[in-house]
Amino acid sequence: MKTTDSLSSLGLRRALQGIEEGLYTALDIINACFDQLERREPVVKAWQCRLNREEYLAQYTKYQSFYEQSILKGLPVGIKDIIDTANMPTEMGSAIHKGRQPVDDAACVSQIRQAGGIVLGKTVTTEFAYFKPGDTCNPKDLLRTPGGSSSGSAAAVADSMVPVALGSQTAASVIRPAAYCGAVGYVASRGDFSLRGIQPLAQSLDSLGLLARSVEDIELMRGILLKQPSPLDLPAAQKPTKVVVCDGAAIGDVDGAMQAAIQSTVLELRRHGVDIIEMSAQSSGLLKELVDHHQCIMAYEVCRNLVQEAAQPELLSEPLIDLIDRGVAISYDDYLAARQQAEKIREQLWAEYADCDLMLAPAAPGVAPLGIDKTGAPHMSRPWQAMNLPVITLPGHVFEGNLPLGVQLVGRLNEDQSLLRLARWVEGVLPR
Amino acid sequence: MKTTDSLSSLGLRRALQGIEEGLYTALDIINACFDQLERREPVVKAWQCRLNREEYLAQYTKYQSFYEQSILKGLPVGIKDIIDTANMPTEMGSAIHKGRQPVDDAACVSQIRQAGGIVLGKTVTTEFAYFKPGDTCNPKDLLRTPGGSSSGSAAAVADSMVPVALGSQTAASVIRPAAYCGAVGYVASRGDFSLRGIQPLAQSLDSLGLLARSVEDIELMRGILLKQPSPLDLPAAQKPTKVVVCDGAAIGDVDGAMQAAIQSTVLELRRHGVDIIEMSAQSSGLLKELVDHHQCIMAYEVCRNLVQEAAQPELLSEPLIDLIDRGVAISYDDYLAARQQAEKIREQLWAEYADCDLMLAPAAPGVAPLGIDKTGAPHMSRPWQAMNLPVITLPGHVFEGNLPLGVQLVGRLNEDQSLLRLARWVEGVLPR
Repeated sequence: MKTTDSLSSLGLRRALQGIEEGLYTALDIINACFDQLERREPVVKAWQCRLNREEYLAQYTKYQSFYEQSILKGLPVGIKDIIDTANMPTEMGSAIHKGRQPVDDAACVSQIRQAGGIVLGKTVTTEFAYFKPGDTCNPKDLLRTPGGSSSGSAAAVADSMVPVALGSQTAASVIRPAAYCGAVGYVASRGDFSLRGIQPLAQSLDSLGLLARSVEDIELMRGILLKQPSPLDLPAAQKPTKVVVCDGAAIGDVDGAMQAAIQSTVLELRRHGVDIIEMSAQSSGLLKELVDHHQCIMAYEVCRNLVQEAAQPELLSEPLIDLIDRGVAISYDDYLAARQQAEKIREQLWAEYADCDLMLAPAAPGVAPLGIDKTGAPHMSRPWQAMNLPVITLPGHVFEGNLPLGVQLVGRLNEDQSLLRLARWVEGVLPR
Repeated sequence: MKTTDSLSSLGLRRALQGIEEGLYTALDIINACFDQLERREPVVKAWQCRLNREEYLAQYTKYQSFYEQSILKGLPVGIKDIIDTANMPTEMGSAIHKGRQPVDDAACVSQIRQAGGIVLGKTVTTEFAYFKPGDTCNPKDLLRTPGGSSSGSAAAVADSMVPVALGSQTAASVIRPAAYCGAVGYVASRGDFSLRGIQPLAQSLDSLGLLARSVEDIELMRGILLKQPSPLDLPAAQKPTKVVVCDGAAIGDVDGAMQAAIQSTVLELRRHGVDIIEMSAQSSGLLKELVDHHQCIMAYEVCRNLVQEAAQPELLSEPLIDLIDRGVAISYDDYLAARQQAEKIREQLWAEYADCDLMLAPAAPGVAPLGIDKTGAPHMSRPWQAMNLPVITLPGHVFEGNLPLGVQLVGRLNEDQSLLRLARWVEGVLPR
């Protein structure tokens, strides 16, 4: 048996293989995760609500034969606290919903439970998955933000408390915390996963996301969520032939560290014979437009989703009230124009780069900023999210000694499987 | 003051105007609705759960000054029982969810409450808005189905128990019951309304719908749900210039009554100078393809939404189990191809009829079939729903003495406002 430390940091698929091979038991992994969690949670504060070790082990033992025959073997999963769970409150980071106990599991939670995953707990989210942070700290530097809104999921995974967690993204809520904490963060093409039981923020933009420590674990969880016949089957990684690089400058500020992360990724890709082209000024201009379209769509829809909450402004943060006020003032015609433009640009952009396999772009403006009262700027994700494209953060770069930073790969709509195979190849050439 | 009878059958907007003009009070309307409801509900069985008159009046009285200043003046609204309400159970027509009490209102329910509507109750739905009917009878002939899945909403509105009700449509769940009961049924372009708190069946197809007794009441409710600044403003009706007619034969069986309803509508339109063309054989062929695409998308998504329910097959109907089994067997690639084809056909079809304002099509194969153990065939709606287009049932035709039958108008994606203005004009030339 390995030491506790290395067991908690094993990837999900590696852990399952080791259990299968008899190197250790699921209980060894579970206990290692709890060891890590109990040591670190007092300072990282990734969990809004969770099972303690005794409760977890009691559940495991009660259904042990089911877990032993299941895909996920009873290993722990974290669930962002805007996703309904029938056995734990779902508070959405809002005082309005303190103690709110849903009656049903979200469909994604049911899929995980049926596959033998155990919901260890609910991870901290910003208020309604928008801006106002919870208490979570960046596990790599406790003075810095973990990013948001999937703050707790990114921190818990990056800190090896759980191998995987569910997140969600409407603007930058998976990609950015993954980049700041040093996790792999994946956002599915919109519409691919069931969102039943996930609190909507903006229906044209909301996507379910996953956080893990490797691309192969993302692929496994995606297979489970999509009810694929053999989610453990791993297709071969695919080397990209040609990649278009977006430096992000047209979207907003990008600091030296992120520029270096992009350049270093480009060098590695080139070194392995991947053809690299730069995004044209015209295409970059379209990305800039998309930032505005994203903000318009989001504001319009948020105020039409958070209807009962908007009537209690004394319990909402200022930024959320601002967003709601902006949304109410947007006309249907302007909103629709933004949606239609975003769709048009998506087709235009990928048509221009029809011979490319991937886009490479910054996942955030730079490393996690100091302070946990803000979650960092979301603009680096707005264009891709407005186009509903699948995206993934790959970590690997480290600055200032121990601050992780991830870059973002962007795929074609609904070609998520291909994106993940390509991303797994790229992951292999990045520093670990 | 008018007699009770005519007060309950007043349209929503007419009732509000009369209250404004001092002809009667909101309480007169409310009491007239309860008179009608108490007389008819024992045989029509439109309600799954509801306030009784005393409870309703107590709520009205408690907040009377709010209601008096509100848009909807405290008038009653029916809510399909797959839409969450914080003060009443939401059982989705399923034994699995008997007594299920949601913690929050759906966003659409919050919008209605904030506009001064009172939720009179939850209307009967088929099991999870799919096939298995509840107890509701067609108010025009108690031996016949009201259609489904928005059975209770259509029956309650057509029978003048409430002026308006919310429904939803994934296949034919608003259009068909409206046609069978003699109500106006509208299904919004997918994505226009917030679906927060509405139980999803198939996310690529689900739309919120409205049932009322006139197009102008649909427009009013749509304005409220979209948070429009002046939902009471009524734009001028718009006469269509050119209409393309689909006889439905390529989609499936259409009986003599529906053929007559379409022909009579065409005659009225022609008589008023509207140019009419017939849908080409090629386009009709595309509609036939869409039926298959719709079934593929629906089965794939349903089994990935009803995850926890699928684990309790002993509490599900046979048709639903069949649907789930079919869905599990569909590959992601086949599913995606169906979605993409449906989108492509939508663009192709409306491009071919770019000079037309509307499509006219059967809303059902014919009048409501005898028996309440089935809800009639849904195929006449599958093509339009697969394309996510806005549609509306206009009643007016009557067969065999008293059996209503509606025809369907189809608009362009997201041009719902234009569809409704055109539909209001068409409504004016149809028999009443």
